[in-house]
Amino acid sequence: MRNIKLTIEYDGTNFHGWQSQNNSLAVQDVITEGIFKLTGENVTVNGSSRTDAGVHALGLCANFHTDSSIPPERFAYALNTVMPPDIVVLKSEEVDLNFHARFNSKGKKYRYLIYNSVFPSPLLRERACHISKQLDIEKMHEAADKFLGTHDFSTFMAAGSVVKSTVRTINYVNVEKKGNLVSFEVQGDGFLYNMVRIMAGTLIEVGFGKINAADIDSIILSGNRKKAGKTAPAHGLYLVEVFY
Amino acid sequence: MRNIKLTIEYDGTNFHGWQSQNNSLAVQDVITEGIFKLTGENVTVNGSSRTDAGVHALGLCANFHTDSSIPPERFAYALNTVMPPDIVVLKSEEVDLNFHARFNSKGKKYRYLIYNSVFPSPLLRERACHISKQLDIEKMHEAADKFLGTHDFSTFMAAGSVVKSTVRTINYVNVEKKGNLVSFEVQGDGFLYNMVRIMAGTLIEVGFGKINAADIDSIILSGNRKKAGKTAPAHGLYLVEVFY
Repeated sequence: MRNIKLTIEYDGTNFHGWQSQNNSLAVQDVITEGIFKLTGENVTVNGSSRTDAGVHALGLCANFHTDSSIPPERFAYALNTVMPPDIVVLKSEEVDLNFHARFNSKGKKYRYLIYNSVFPSPLLRERACHISKQLDIEKMHEAADKFLGTHDFSTFMAAGSVVKSTVRTINYVNVEKKGNLVSFEVQGDGFLYNMVRIMAGTLIEVGFGKINAADIDSIILSGNRKKAGKTAPAHGLYLVEVFY
Repeated sequence: MRNIKLTIEYDGTNFHGWQSQNNSLAVQDVITEGIFKLTGENVTVNGSSRTDAGVHALGLCANFHTDSSIPPERFAYALNTVMPPDIVVLKSEEVDLNFHARFNSKGKKYRYLIYNSVFPSPLLRERACHISKQLDIEKMHEAADKFLGTHDFSTFMAAGSVVKSTVRTINYVNVEKKGNLVSFEVQGDGFLYNMVRIMAGTLIEVGFGKINAADIDSIILSGNRKKAGKTAPAHGLYLVEVFY
């Protein structure tokens, strides 16, 4: 018995997110089916993150146990021959039998892309959220800095979510603009449901001048979802990296 | 009567290139139909370039004559409301009645993108040509520099093409790598059929070590299509800008 860790990139456009569900195709289904095709085993594939429909991944991690004799590092090559082109396994490696892609995660990095120009970009239409009104990047950066540190982030959680604790630590944020593309990056020990998309939606309203950067502290403290911005669309979000 | 110039971005994936043809959807058809929807006029839309199926454009130019009272700069906004999301008019403006997007072009800039990594990128699968074998970027740059100047480029023209002259002047080239993405840019007064894709295919073989950079001069001089590399796939090519 071996425990195999996979690092996976995918275009989330045509999937109902990571997690298997009835009546819709999830990334987890495709990976599980790929492993079945190679090994004949019906394994459980543990993902690091339950990304929403339309969200992309540059480095989601997953693990599964197998009795197959396929060398661990060859699983990436083999899986890529039996999967559709919108999912690619970048790396496969053997890990400790107790390793679990979700429970052992020490942190994650996300990126949210905004295409800020009068007209949308056809080439980025499923890769970045289009905002036609000019955004104030300096103010967005100032606001993003307020996310740093350990806070109760219940303001930035989708209404109705149930979790043990809503306290998370954010240790890196950045907002920068290159050409028409605005990138918001955030790294922390964990994220609540829709947290990055609500952060991005809030920063967009800061960029419009509808929310003041100076008010972010009190918005965090309020614990009131309604004080934050809208949940930004899924197709601008990328899970960049998972740390162990 | 007004002459309107359009600057157009499109994702070429789902089109049979710019030029209208029987039994397939071309970008020109969509623009022509969009203008008909707005004005009721059946105009001729002159494009600057006949891009191949799958080739993208960041700034293709076109022009058409109209008796419509729509203000020239509003055509972009209006057309974008009646066209599919893979074509966007970035700018519309009134130009001299004699202006012709193709015949008045003084030069063009193209970009060819290569994703150079062991595995393909799902997110770039229709945006860059995947090459798994490591490319030598320095040698590619050295080879690209040989394209500079005025040459008979018949070696770099699709076999069977008929043109008055195969002499073209290239005044800018660049090859650079950022992360896994290799970008080859080339600017000149005009390009023969498939010229940039054959240049890109040749540079890829230089990057593999199959063609020597030092041999590019004699390959150009040979006038023999077979001495150059393969025609690189359409989906890595972008028409960046047209100069007037």
